[in-house]
Amino acid sequence: MANPTAAMLVIGDEILSGRTKDINVGFLAERLTEAAIDLKEVRMISDDHQEIADAVRALSDRWDHVFTSGGIGPTHDDITADAVAAAFDTPIDVRDDARALLVGHYQKNGITLNENRLRMARIPDGADLIDNPVSVAPGFTIGNVNVMAGVPAVFQAMVVSVVATLQGGAPILSRTFRVDLPEGDLASPLAEVAKRHTDVSIGSYPFIRDGRFGANIVFRHSDAGLLAAAVDEFHDFFPEAPEL
Amino acid sequence: MANPTAAMLVIGDEILSGRTKDINVGFLAERLTEAAIDLKEVRMISDDHQEIADAVRALSDRWDHVFTSGGIGPTHDDITADAVAAAFDTPIDVRDDARALLVGHYQKNGITLNENRLRMARIPDGADLIDNPVSVAPGFTIGNVNVMAGVPAVFQAMVVSVVATLQGGAPILSRTFRVDLPEGDLASPLAEVAKRHTDVSIGSYPFIRDGRFGANIVFRHSDAGLLAAAVDEFHDFFPEAPEL
Repeated sequence: MANPTAAMLVIGDEILSGRTKDINVGFLAERLTEAAIDLKEVRMISDDHQEIADAVRALSDRWDHVFTSGGIGPTHDDITADAVAAAFDTPIDVRDDARALLVGHYQKNGITLNENRLRMARIPDGADLIDNPVSVAPGFTIGNVNVMAGVPAVFQAMVVSVVATLQGGAPILSRTFRVDLPEGDLASPLAEVAKRHTDVSIGSYPFIRDGRFGANIVFRHSDAGLLAAAVDEFHDFFPEAPEL
Repeated sequence: MANPTAAMLVIGDEILSGRTKDINVGFLAERLTEAAIDLKEVRMISDDHQEIADAVRALSDRWDHVFTSGGIGPTHDDITADAVAAAFDTPIDVRDDARALLVGHYQKNGITLNENRLRMARIPDGADLIDNPVSVAPGFTIGNVNVMAGVPAVFQAMVVSVVATLQGGAPILSRTFRVDLPEGDLASPLAEVAKRHTDVSIGSYPFIRDGRFGANIVFRHSDAGLLAAAVDEFHDFFPEAPEL
């Protein structure tokens, strides 16, 4: 059976301007791979209500799970929660359970729960809260969409707790070999191996290191036997390629 | 007048699996911002012919310029050129000008131009070649789509030469200030400034550093006077916020 699928939506002008370099995609991708959930698509879009609502709808319709990052803080440019509610045609308002989390945290720390902070308790009807162990303001899950913060420390904590609740497929095994040849010299034997092992995903990822060309060859499959058969044949062509 | 718009399409299973961390989005985003072209959307998708063709068509229809990275090498999983040709309903084959580039380079370096390397001379009819000063195999531009390599050194060289040919809008000026307060404490004054300066883009980008919350506030506009007016008002609220 095929693995469950997922998409990620990165929300924020600061990513598209190049001012902030995203590191959340790589983190989520690694956690999903470990959980045997296939990340199939990532989109990065600006802080625009309609853009967010449209993208959430498109990704939610197409893939099993959607993960968003960014735009759930207290400032005027934090509009993700309202846009997600719009995508699901669901009312949104300050919700008692989310407000209680904020009240408890801010009282303990002597911080005023002002009107802006209270915006972080705006949660669509029917959504489940996602725990935020770093700064309390929760994320939420509505339908198959998980709405999370963009600050990496918070995003990462939320991803770990959400992914733990999801049912993955068969874990994908992978083996990687380094070939110190330009891709043009290994393409032909590699294509032969790929043709005889069509079930096994075989990727060639070229690099340039110290001015020399090489490629990492990655074999992927959930069945160790099928994987080994493809690797054996690869080894006939490249007996000296070190496994990474 | 509004700036020209752009989108980027990152092609490759290795990005979606988390094995490779993309650094090309950030590079392109910075170059486009410098050129006053607004990057509006990024998509990352897998090495799949139909996915690539569909995404190229969607992004090309919607934005002024499209930049793709990945999948134009010599191996069996390099299918971008054919998928882009399909998106434009254009024939594709080994083209003489691209072949001549490869022949010249490989002869000089004593490398065999085998059938796989020759795949890198597959260029859609009507496309213009993009120079590759690193490893010769060219990218190409067809319609408003610029097809480039995924290896960062090659991607970066291609981006620089392509962006130099594009007409940008009015350069966007930006000023950034650090406020050492949690966003919840600065959201209200910031919203006031934003409300009175609706033309100026004002973003709040929170961070956690040494366990303390803060935010970088970024003001953006092409007009220095409008920018200064918003910044002045911000300064009334936060006189001690250092400019970054």
